[in-house]
Amino acid sequence: MSSPTNPTSPAGSDLVRACRGEPTSRTPVWFMRQAGRSLPEYRKVREGIPMLTSCRRPDLVTEITLQPVRRYGVDAAIFYSDIVVPLAAAGIDLDIVPGVGPVIAEPVRSRADVERIRPLDPADVPDIAEAVRSLVAELGQTPLIGFAGAPFTLASYLVEGGPSRDLHRTKSLMYGEPELWRDLLARLAQISGTFLRVQAQAGASAVQLFDSWVGAVPAADYRALVQPASRAVLEPLAELGVPRIHFGVGTGELLGLMGEAGADVVGVDWRIPLDEAAKRVGPGRAVQGNLDPAVVFAPWDVVADRTRDVLRRGAIAEGHVFNLGHGVYPDTDPGVLTRIVELVHAETQQ
Amino acid sequence: MSSPTNPTSPAGSDLVRACRGEPTSRTPVWFMRQAGRSLPEYRKVREGIPMLTSCRRPDLVTEITLQPVRRYGVDAAIFYSDIVVPLAAAGIDLDIVPGVGPVIAEPVRSRADVERIRPLDPADVPDIAEAVRSLVAELGQTPLIGFAGAPFTLASYLVEGGPSRDLHRTKSLMYGEPELWRDLLARLAQISGTFLRVQAQAGASAVQLFDSWVGAVPAADYRALVQPASRAVLEPLAELGVPRIHFGVGTGELLGLMGEAGADVVGVDWRIPLDEAAKRVGPGRAVQGNLDPAVVFAPWDVVADRTRDVLRRGAIAEGHVFNLGHGVYPDTDPGVLTRIVELVHAETQQ
Repeated sequence: MSSPTNPTSPAGSDLVRACRGEPTSRTPVWFMRQAGRSLPEYRKVREGIPMLTSCRRPDLVTEITLQPVRRYGVDAAIFYSDIVVPLAAAGIDLDIVPGVGPVIAEPVRSRADVERIRPLDPADVPDIAEAVRSLVAELGQTPLIGFAGAPFTLASYLVEGGPSRDLHRTKSLMYGEPELWRDLLARLAQISGTFLRVQAQAGASAVQLFDSWVGAVPAADYRALVQPASRAVLEPLAELGVPRIHFGVGTGELLGLMGEAGADVVGVDWRIPLDEAAKRVGPGRAVQGNLDPAVVFAPWDVVADRTRDVLRRGAIAEGHVFNLGHGVYPDTDPGVLTRIVELVHAETQQ
Repeated sequence: MSSPTNPTSPAGSDLVRACRGEPTSRTPVWFMRQAGRSLPEYRKVREGIPMLTSCRRPDLVTEITLQPVRRYGVDAAIFYSDIVVPLAAAGIDLDIVPGVGPVIAEPVRSRADVERIRPLDPADVPDIAEAVRSLVAELGQTPLIGFAGAPFTLASYLVEGGPSRDLHRTKSLMYGEPELWRDLLARLAQISGTFLRVQAQAGASAVQLFDSWVGAVPAADYRALVQPASRAVLEPLAELGVPRIHFGVGTGELLGLMGEAGADVVGVDWRIPLDEAAKRVGPGRAVQGNLDPAVVFAPWDVVADRTRDVLRRGAIAEGHVFNLGHGVYPDTDPGVLTRIVELVHAETQQ
């Protein structure tokens, strides 16, 4: 029988303990995008199957989520999905185009567009709950981290119509029509929050809310125009007792505010030394990160030095989950990630 | 006859004086990408003429550079060009593809690729010197700012083969083969430095070195692997007596180091309040920026409030050149930029 204090249950795992700032047997490590394009076994099971389809088949979600756990011996699985999956499940017409990313059939730019966005009902995603239950059974004592995109980043895809370098349509809407913007983000917060709740209630031991592109927003605007929606996702999850990790890229000026949005752990990209990041996050919260995912292409002694440096700096935080500063690049040699896991474990074994 | 202390010469203009931290009659203002896609008169003269061709025709460069000066009454012209122009002039096979950006025929990834990059000779760009001379004659007391891309950002296009969101091939090379990387950046510093020297010697009153994408690099790596090449561009220009402006996006952690690379003025994007940025830049240098280019899509009272806020924060710096935090977006209403120029001038008139 599992309990939060039982180290052989996911809830008592090093990952969950680090998220709570509790002592761990060693620093837990996992990698954003550990499941996916960098793994040959992933490319094999995905052959001929469109991305969105793969995210809605519990057998595939289970297999793909487990692959990196088997291969790397990481301390957590991250639920295999895409941030647009709950949007599609709520009826928004979109596709994920290989080599491009999400493409929205009708970009959201007007009041009428926003009002067409309906809430996500748990009944829309029975397959997600099924995949989580299957995964929890397979994973044993390894925790599963639930996955969702945050309102700002979801909005950026909907407004731009797809990936964008500068997000200027998104920010135009945010500055130009703040009331419409708030309504859009509130609807997306409901969708994102429901998607995470489904995963947590089905057995995920933690959740991560990805606000990948929120680093484009200055702190004062983040506080006024983004944080309320992120908080609407994160705070209601507190009652489920699962740690909440919150991550974005280029968020050096936002780390404290992202914590205050209701995160137990703030994910940090590679731009800031992790000890400095921990200071910005402030007391009472753990940090996650932050090896530059491009460093894996360096000779091993450089990778090892950088890994040790991240561990040294992370040691001053109130809890450290080792990770990359952004997702695994598709051309990463999985063998290097295996060595990083071994090194993190060896260096931090108590 | 012009002299640095004559306010009716470009060298005694508010732009140059602000760059030097000297008192100005009012805060000078110009906009990155003020020449170009947002102006109907630009789209008209560019009709049927490829981008790279337009950058090598002195008549077009002169006309396009002058257009925003006529329209907006800005305090400086910025030389119309593209950061890949000097690369093409040095014999690198590339094109600028509409809707995509620069595309490099043979991306630079090996020792042999790097060794094929030859120095830029001023004789490669007689048209650039001719355009500058023509512009200086037309501009009268309005200063012309010379334009070039910095070694890191030039390298990013060469290594990636074109625009990239994550620059991971660039950073792979930087971390994986630092000696080859340094050689590449040294060659690009020669090209960039020569391109700016040609412009300054032909009469430009200031220069701006654009390191647009360097914000992807953490500070410690910037210092070791980027700053030496930027310094090799900027420091030799000191003898020409023209202020050197240095700008990049997402450089909150790099502002001090970018100044130390040999800049008189550090350009700041919109992510950091300008007073905070001035503190990070440190004493003895001016700042440029930093209205979010997406703010122009807001109602005018918001634009005006934001503009005043930038002016208020910039007032604590040792010299402030008002600008956007990044280039003008193509769908910007030029009428809003006109009003911003008027407001900056009215608010700061001594």
